[in-house]
Amino acid sequence: MKVLITGFEPFGNDEVNPSYEAVKKINLSQSKHSINQACLPVVFHQALKVLYDLIEKHQPDVVICVGQAGGRTHLTIERVGINVDDARIPDNAGNLPVDQVIVPSGSDAYFSNLPIKAMAFEMNKIGIPTTISNTAGTYVCNHVLYGLMYYIHEKSPNIKGGFIHVPYIPSQATAYPNSASMDLDNIVRGLEFAIEAACEYQEDIKISHGTTC
Amino acid sequence: MKVLITGFEPFGNDEVNPSYEAVKKINLSQSKHSINQACLPVVFHQALKVLYDLIEKHQPDVVICVGQAGGRTHLTIERVGINVDDARIPDNAGNLPVDQVIVPSGSDAYFSNLPIKAMAFEMNKIGIPTTISNTAGTYVCNHVLYGLMYYIHEKSPNIKGGFIHVPYIPSQATAYPNSASMDLDNIVRGLEFAIEAACEYQEDIKISHGTTC
Amino acid sequence: MKVLITGFEPFGNDEVNPSYEAVKKINLSQSKHSINQACLPVVFHQALKVLYDLIEKHQPDVVICVGQAGGRTHLTIERVGINVDDARIPDNAGNLPVDQVIVPSGSDAYFSNLPIKAMAFEMNKIGIPTTISNTAGTYVCNHVLYGLMYYIHEKSPNIKGGFIHVPYIPSQATAYPNSASMDLDNIVRGLEFAIEAACEYQEDIKISHGTTC
Amino acid sequence: MKVLITGFEPFGNDEVNPSYEAVKKINLSQSKHSINQACLPVVFHQALKVLYDLIEKHQPDVVICVGQAGGRTHLTIERVGINVDDARIPDNAGNLPVDQVIVPSGSDAYFSNLPIKAMAFEMNKIGIPTTISNTAGTYVCNHVLYGLMYYIHEKSPNIKGGFIHVPYIPSQATAYPNSASMDLDNIVRGLEFAIEAACEYQEDIKISHGTTC
Repeated sequence: MKVLITGFEPFGNDEVNPSYEAVKKINLSQSKHSINQACLPVVFHQALKVLYDLIEKHQPDVVICVGQAGGRTHLTIERVGINVDDARIPDNAGNLPVDQVIVPSGSDAYFSNLPIKAMAFEMNKIGIPTTISNTAGTYVCNHVLYGLMYYIHEKSPNIKGGFIHVPYIPSQATAYPNSASMDLDNIVRGLEFAIEAACEYQEDIKISHGTTC
Repeated sequence: MKVLITGFEPFGNDEVNPSYEAVKKINLSQSKHSINQACLPVVFHQALKVLYDLIEKHQPDVVICVGQAGGRTHLTIERVGINVDDARIPDNAGNLPVDQVIVPSGSDAYFSNLPIKAMAFEMNKIGIPTTISNTAGTYVCNHVLYGLMYYIHEKSPNIKGGFIHVPYIPSQATAYPNSASMDLDNIVRGLEFAIEAACEYQEDIKISHGTTC
Repeated sequence: MKVLITGFEPFGNDEVNPSYEAVKKINLSQSKHSINQACLPVVFHQALKVLYDLIEKHQPDVVICVGQAGGRTHLTIERVGINVDDARIPDNAGNLPVDQVIVPSGSDAYFSNLPIKAMAFEMNKIGIPTTISNTAGTYVCNHVLYGLMYYIHEKSPNIKGGFIHVPYIPSQATAYPNSASMDLDNIVRGLEFAIEAACEYQEDIKISHGTTC
Repeated sequence: MKVLITGFEPFGNDEVNPSYEAVKKINLSQSKHSINQACLPVVFHQALKVLYDLIEKHQPDVVICVGQAGGRTHLTIERVGINVDDARIPDNAGNLPVDQVIVPSGSDAYFSNLPIKAMAFEMNKIGIPTTISNTAGTYVCNHVLYGLMYYIHEKSPNIKGGFIHVPYIPSQATAYPNSASMDLDNIVRGLEFAIEAACEYQEDIKISHGTTC
């Protein structure tokens, strides 16, 4: 299968973004799938233009976008993207949207159509802490997830797409005394298994990563 | 205006549910609005039947459902309900759905159409810690929020509806050494101002409660 | 019995300090004990001078100092004060000690000799979330706890003394989206029962508030 | 210099203890110091007997004990051990002490005499998240730290000794959805630099890892 996997450039106070650092280290020769790696700008709308061009160029079967979620402990596979931009800090072009719709004609949200539970299962099985997240936030990560799933729903329903958030890497966490981190090689390995599972599973498996509220 | 506000019965290991304890203590005489209070069962689908009957009986202008989110520090006004049930513990009838769609013909999610930022602003102004949440979870709370917004979209678009999660009350937190709590009277007061703001604001205000991921 | 209970003035970015707000609201007429309330400056060494003068003036049987621990969820009764000042922010006189010994001739630490487990038990019993803490930090709170216990060991071994940290109150937490808080009246009630238990229990009870590391 | 570094065997629900897993992977050939590695039982008092025998056998200049602190995000160098056992779960021999003094004739606590700030500085400099902790808990880890420092004070004041807590490793965190972890190789590398700094620095450096309460 053809896979497109993207990370992001650094933003905010961070000089590195582990999402793209990990994406570019994925071992291509180990997979039987054809994997394209790319970096997206942390800029509302511009990120989606770049993503859409990549999809049209590479015609992937699977698209996995990856972004940084500083403070999280696990790789988190996102369940849903929502149709709103609500930023606490400016993006890399200075945009600071508050409660703006992403696609005026779009639905309020779209679920990822990746086999997210199967992916989490396979990633945990090899010892990479992974769970499901029910919110990708309201910044550029969610923007990209929403925009990806909108594109899939409207134009390419055969593509399987979704989003994975990654923690800080250890060097970032030295500056944040209470922040979790994950070694870059473990993030890379988690993403490699995420790709394999996304390609292999025709249907998702039913294991609870549910909540109690 | 006519307001319907609901809480939930206890569930799981808790003998009390602060959501309904708070809802029933709301001071009706202090509001110029007509407020109906009710308790929903913590049972998938059954909770929605009860809610729909209440809406049809009371014909409210505003519907606010309230539920417990043990561990949260603030009153949290939910932004969105998603079309999935994914339970970690059984509901009060023993149902344990995993990744089941709530309404097969429904959208993946619906935003609350309450003025959530204005509500949070007014509640914080009187000293009740309140913020916006981007996930209501995947248990009965989200189920009710999703089902409420589905109903509004399909049948009664003039109703304004949404959901507020409340923390444990202090007596519950004595059993959970690291869990935050909020005094019941503060929860009640927060809900009273939530109702007022939900009725008064014709449009939401734009203040960021956004994320950085 | 004669009880001295102290709070602190505000410091850092906070305009209020719930410790003294609570201490001054303690209902004196409800207790059969004679209770003196006082406010300590958030200044290294100066705080201890004020405390020692109060002890010499009032000749208390029990001394409980109270301070703010922003972010904690429970009232926390401190087990031990340690002989070091290590500040992250200046005190109210601009002092910023790093790794300075408090009393050069003192031991490395002194345990509180209050019946801390019995106090926590009684406070939880009335529904005020309370636990034991094994660190009072390294700022003015720990400084005062250490200095108090040094004084007791050296000069007045019949005094029972210790320290209780209190969370933010709700109005403070409106500014900190992830911070727990506790209603001021609940803090006051917790302190009232803390005083009673500190006076009544001749010996502490043995219930575990232990750790697993 | 001669260094003794110890880890612990597994305990509680965990089948592995990253402390000894890391200790035994330390690269001995890379250091100019003579390093002895050992594993301590998670048994009150028995752990200290084993440690004291090791000290008498190896006559080390530096002793660093290492233990697991599940849930912490960083390597944490402990500042102080306190003279109390207060267990929440039984040790590996079934002992469950509550509020028992470790050494009846000992002081309430002893500070580590390692250059803890210098160690943290060097470990962070190479990108391994490290901070100072003001509590080693009240379980076997604190027991060993206290017992070690008691021994040093009473019998061998020239030994430099202390304790480092390590997070879960990733494979453990797959079972704990909100728990941080650190890759074993990063723990090992952190400990290697901890040993070097402990041996090289004659005096500690003064950088704040202080608190604000």
